[in-house]
Amino acid sequence: MIDLRSDTLTRPTAAMRAAIAAAEVGDEQRGEDPTVNALLRRVCELTGKEAALFLPGGTMANNIAVAVHARSGEAVLAHHDAHLIRSESAGPVVLARVLIDALDGADGHFTPEDVTRRAARGTLYEPRTALLCVEQTHNFAGGTIWPLHELQAVTDAARDAGLAIHMDGARLLNAVVAAGTPASDYCALVDSVWLCFTKGLGAPIGAVLAGDADFIERARALKHMVGGALRQAGIAAAACVYALDHHVERLAEDHAHARRLADGLLELGLDVHTPDPQTNMVFFSADHGDFLGALERRGVRIGPVGDRLRAVTHLDVDTSDIDHAIAVVGDVLSSAPEGAHGQRYEYG
Amino acid sequence: MIDLRSDTLTRPTAAMRAAIAAAEVGDEQRGEDPTVNALLRRVCELTGKEAALFLPGGTMANNIAVAVHARSGEAVLAHHDAHLIRSESAGPVVLARVLIDALDGADGHFTPEDVTRRAARGTLYEPRTALLCVEQTHNFAGGTIWPLHELQAVTDAARDAGLAIHMDGARLLNAVVAAGTPASDYCALVDSVWLCFTKGLGAPIGAVLAGDADFIERARALKHMVGGALRQAGIAAAACVYALDHHVERLAEDHAHARRLADGLLELGLDVHTPDPQTNMVFFSADHGDFLGALERRGVRIGPVGDRLRAVTHLDVDTSDIDHAIAVVGDVLSSAPEGAHGQRYEYG
Amino acid sequence: MIDLRSDTLTRPTAAMRAAIAAAEVGDEQRGEDPTVNALLRRVCELTGKEAALFLPGGTMANNIAVAVHARSGEAVLAHHDAHLIRSESAGPVVLARVLIDALDGADGHFTPEDVTRRAARGTLYEPRTALLCVEQTHNFAGGTIWPLHELQAVTDAARDAGLAIHMDGARLLNAVVAAGTPASDYCALVDSVWLCFTKGLGAPIGAVLAGDADFIERARALKHMVGGALRQAGIAAAACVYALDHHVERLAEDHAHARRLADGLLELGLDVHTPDPQTNMVFFSADHGDFLGALERRGVRIGPVGDRLRAVTHLDVDTSDIDHAIAVVGDVLSSAPEGAHGQRYEYG
Amino acid sequence: MIDLRSDTLTRPTAAMRAAIAAAEVGDEQRGEDPTVNALLRRVCELTGKEAALFLPGGTMANNIAVAVHARSGEAVLAHHDAHLIRSESAGPVVLARVLIDALDGADGHFTPEDVTRRAARGTLYEPRTALLCVEQTHNFAGGTIWPLHELQAVTDAARDAGLAIHMDGARLLNAVVAAGTPASDYCALVDSVWLCFTKGLGAPIGAVLAGDADFIERARALKHMVGGALRQAGIAAAACVYALDHHVERLAEDHAHARRLADGLLELGLDVHTPDPQTNMVFFSADHGDFLGALERRGVRIGPVGDRLRAVTHLDVDTSDIDHAIAVVGDVLSSAPEGAHGQRYEYG
Repeated sequence: MIDLRSDTLTRPTAAMRAAIAAAEVGDEQRGEDPTVNALLRRVCELTGKEAALFLPGGTMANNIAVAVHARSGEAVLAHHDAHLIRSESAGPVVLARVLIDALDGADGHFTPEDVTRRAARGTLYEPRTALLCVEQTHNFAGGTIWPLHELQAVTDAARDAGLAIHMDGARLLNAVVAAGTPASDYCALVDSVWLCFTKGLGAPIGAVLAGDADFIERARALKHMVGGALRQAGIAAAACVYALDHHVERLAEDHAHARRLADGLLELGLDVHTPDPQTNMVFFSADHGDFLGALERRGVRIGPVGDRLRAVTHLDVDTSDIDHAIAVVGDVLSSAPEGAHGQRYEYG
Repeated sequence: MIDLRSDTLTRPTAAMRAAIAAAEVGDEQRGEDPTVNALLRRVCELTGKEAALFLPGGTMANNIAVAVHARSGEAVLAHHDAHLIRSESAGPVVLARVLIDALDGADGHFTPEDVTRRAARGTLYEPRTALLCVEQTHNFAGGTIWPLHELQAVTDAARDAGLAIHMDGARLLNAVVAAGTPASDYCALVDSVWLCFTKGLGAPIGAVLAGDADFIERARALKHMVGGALRQAGIAAAACVYALDHHVERLAEDHAHARRLADGLLELGLDVHTPDPQTNMVFFSADHGDFLGALERRGVRIGPVGDRLRAVTHLDVDTSDIDHAIAVVGDVLSSAPEGAHGQRYEYG
Repeated sequence: MIDLRSDTLTRPTAAMRAAIAAAEVGDEQRGEDPTVNALLRRVCELTGKEAALFLPGGTMANNIAVAVHARSGEAVLAHHDAHLIRSESAGPVVLARVLIDALDGADGHFTPEDVTRRAARGTLYEPRTALLCVEQTHNFAGGTIWPLHELQAVTDAARDAGLAIHMDGARLLNAVVAAGTPASDYCALVDSVWLCFTKGLGAPIGAVLAGDADFIERARALKHMVGGALRQAGIAAAACVYALDHHVERLAEDHAHARRLADGLLELGLDVHTPDPQTNMVFFSADHGDFLGALERRGVRIGPVGDRLRAVTHLDVDTSDIDHAIAVVGDVLSSAPEGAHGQRYEYG
Repeated sequence: MIDLRSDTLTRPTAAMRAAIAAAEVGDEQRGEDPTVNALLRRVCELTGKEAALFLPGGTMANNIAVAVHARSGEAVLAHHDAHLIRSESAGPVVLARVLIDALDGADGHFTPEDVTRRAARGTLYEPRTALLCVEQTHNFAGGTIWPLHELQAVTDAARDAGLAIHMDGARLLNAVVAAGTPASDYCALVDSVWLCFTKGLGAPIGAVLAGDADFIERARALKHMVGGALRQAGIAAAACVYALDHHVERLAEDHAHARRLADGLLELGLDVHTPDPQTNMVFFSADHGDFLGALERRGVRIGPVGDRLRAVTHLDVDTSDIDHAIAVVGDVLSSAPEGAHGQRYEYG
């Protein structure tokens, strides 16, 4: 099966499994897991942040970051298509009790003027705006990259207005590799950021949230409260360390595969929304019976995101898989439609 | 002082004060206040709803209604300029822990297609949409009226999608008088609705939330929880009953005054956003030094709403006050600008 | 009907109604109601606090005070029989999301040692204790008074441990009148306190929360959020001012009536839990069929509190009413039991 | 180092690491991880429950279970020394917004009469009691076991009162092995239960919550919301499956070690609170300078729980370690006190 539903589907390689099996471990809740601690130091170096926190996943990272930066009843700015609004079960709203104030704009981006205008709010009646969230790369906009100067402009506007700034950097390293901009350059513009290790990086479990020491101390207290403290988490962290050592530069292959796939789908005459993919995602539409079911019966899985289709390239997909997937799509399109349209579903 | 900042500024008339002083009262928390109970029956008749609940104010009505209709982590559709989003201190988010999913559109309105599209959401990842809120009249859009057939279309879309529907009817009776549509026709389209008695109706304290018996039973429990249960509330309810008897039809005068004011401001060359006011509000802009301060020093108060100005007509303002206010605006505009721009502020 | 179920049942007198009808009013949400403002100054003088806030009722006062003093996930110390735990619909837990850590002890009191021991808690695992709540007088313990020196001891312990201290002073003035201790002496020991005007003081609506200016500013923001901001609240506040002028000293009559009632019930052989009532409450037990129903059919209402009965004396009950009530109880006891036991119910 | 601070400190054995490295995995968020699914089936068999859910830890299991069983503003009964009250950062209160109503009693137990009396509550004023929580074994009471017939009595009382029942079974298998009662017999008495795999069972990460299908469906939605959904969690679940196969019966050794340790400490004249340990914990007191620091400098770690000391036996401690620890304690006690008393700390 060639599974392009998401880069979360990557499985640990043999070498990564060896690192997992050999991990030195301790009680993470007590701060005693040496492998977790090593990973946190690595993320601090990578992001240029003072402190970091290991978490079981990224939704928890967003939930906690919002709750540290904003108080109950304050407003949080984010793009209306941000993953933390669209696809995290309203977690930040339930934990932090904040009003999400959604911004519009192409590519998951918005303007400094929009930030300034919204951030000016705040009276006894109107919720004060406390936080700006940015997503790098922006998933539902097509794996798009915030160029450094654009990010600088919107974060400058946020700083001027007194907002805290949080980056959902689930796929930050895809942006780093694709744009050639160091992670620390992006991260210098924000107060907090998290990285996911279970997507293109290929680790089985783990996200790391980074920020200044005070932020992380408060985040740690919330981590305990929501049930995210772990025990011998080194078995998971060892895979994350391995991924930082071996799976970052190779993200360029995923990006090349996405472009190859987009080209192939365009040649087949499909409506491709990301004709020139910036990172590892291809969004497109296909109105052809039970298109996804027909693909799956032929060994290729692609997933719907809202009313679009999304193919994501990753560690477990090589160039021949891409070519095969294109061929399978072509075969389905040239066959009679099979069944009715499938169910919609949102992926992480 | 001619105070046009809001219709919330109305003061009880002498006759209303007499009704207050003579009110028969009991313990409202125990359901034993006869004047409150009489008011609730009146509102049930007016709205066609089965049951009703007396509340100290409208923000509590919205908070409670949202919390009854939606569960923690569900999404609520409302216009992005809805009062419950813009001007109620994020109360519904804190009590109900819901994600506000804002809709766009002129006049505070939106399309059935928008409702249908948003309401289709709901997976383990994406918050389920539980509730549609509509505002009649729509304050920040200019006191605009949802025509019955448009309201029918969006509420039909919501029903088809399985949503509950709540109407913020703070100024519903302004729509009723202006459009000539009975309140019960509007209310038949929604599951819950509340009326405010402290705006154009001129009572000092009170809002009434109405719905079916089960809704009101759950709302009553939340009223106790948030601290809205009262004791001898009949002194407030007596003014509300008086207002229903004497202050409904006269809202037409407020509407005529708003049109007269809009005409006057247009003649003065101002940028009037509501050149043909539907009810009792005039929104406009004036870029002339400390315009509001200059007005106030001449005995006229107008308030800012965001970056616009809003004048609201009401019970305590008569035709000569309107003419005087227009003259004062003209005087300020023809004088040299005084001082710098004033502070922005949001009114209820 | 002689209604002894609660002192919340008092109805405004003719003179109080005249004060209500004549009240000067303004928009309370904007801080423009002169009668409310006058009341707040009166309460500041009475309590010795810097600032105050008018609220529709006492549950809201407790909810808000707890939410200002404690953060989500912190612990709050209070007697296990405190009104805010037992009889306020868990409002503080829902708004403030705090862990209630209940203390034991006779008369609604507890020891400084208990406070010290509990307050020592607080790690990443164990919730930090943020707040001590005391109730003066203590309702469910029998309208009992915290003597000043005992209150001093427990609040000293709380201060030493870094806790904030909140007083539920719903019936503080009963303690003041009974003990002859000035309100400001009690209030000097706590950070915040609220008074109820709808109980022995006889006003129809209103509670006032007092504290330092910063506390009240934060409390005001929460008041808006929970929907407690009012409009022309002067009609309610006028009755509260009147009550401060005319209904404080007379609380001594209520206390004498409670003692007279307790004596009468003891003479009838009933099990009186408060044989020497400290203020205006008599708790007792009567195992005699549908005792409360039999009383009510004879024109006397008494209410159950959990598995006990409670009679509360107040403004609308005079000496002859007490004597008549005793006679009616005697009549019921000497008659054959009527029906089965009634339903239990908790009163405010 | 002989580390007796907690059984959470166990490290995976070589055989367990091999199982981890070989784990078949998939995307757990999508329900596609075969090893997680196998573990869930094992727990369903063990507990006799219909469905189960893999979670990163036990605090999350308690948080979620409380939030599914009780609604905002309802009351939850639990022993005052329950781990979910004392040592989980108030997580259930923040997520579920419930009032914790603490019960008293020796051994972490309480009576059916207490349950019945508390469960009778519930009016508009008094929070309704929705849930009873029991802890098996009871950590802070000394690793004590609820005998089946006592548990039956309190759960019968809860059922009769209409309460849901949740068991914190973090160390349920210790009770099963010590008492010889099958897990399914205990679990038949409750609606939900969770097991921890990172304590005596020796796995690095993981807890499993079990209940009926509807409960687990709702729990899964909350798991996503709080950020507990994982990706290739099979690497953790493989260790849990291994532990069920190889580390259950051996808990008897931990229990024997606890008794051996208690005997040794008693012989040394220490005040041992659990002279006859029921499972794997020894609570005692030692007033001897920086007792814990002195132990640690000699290679033995014991932890404080409140103002007591707790030693917990587990997989990484053998008989000679116990004997050595006793000798080290004896050595410290016979030496001059070193330094001052250490900091208190709560362990999980």
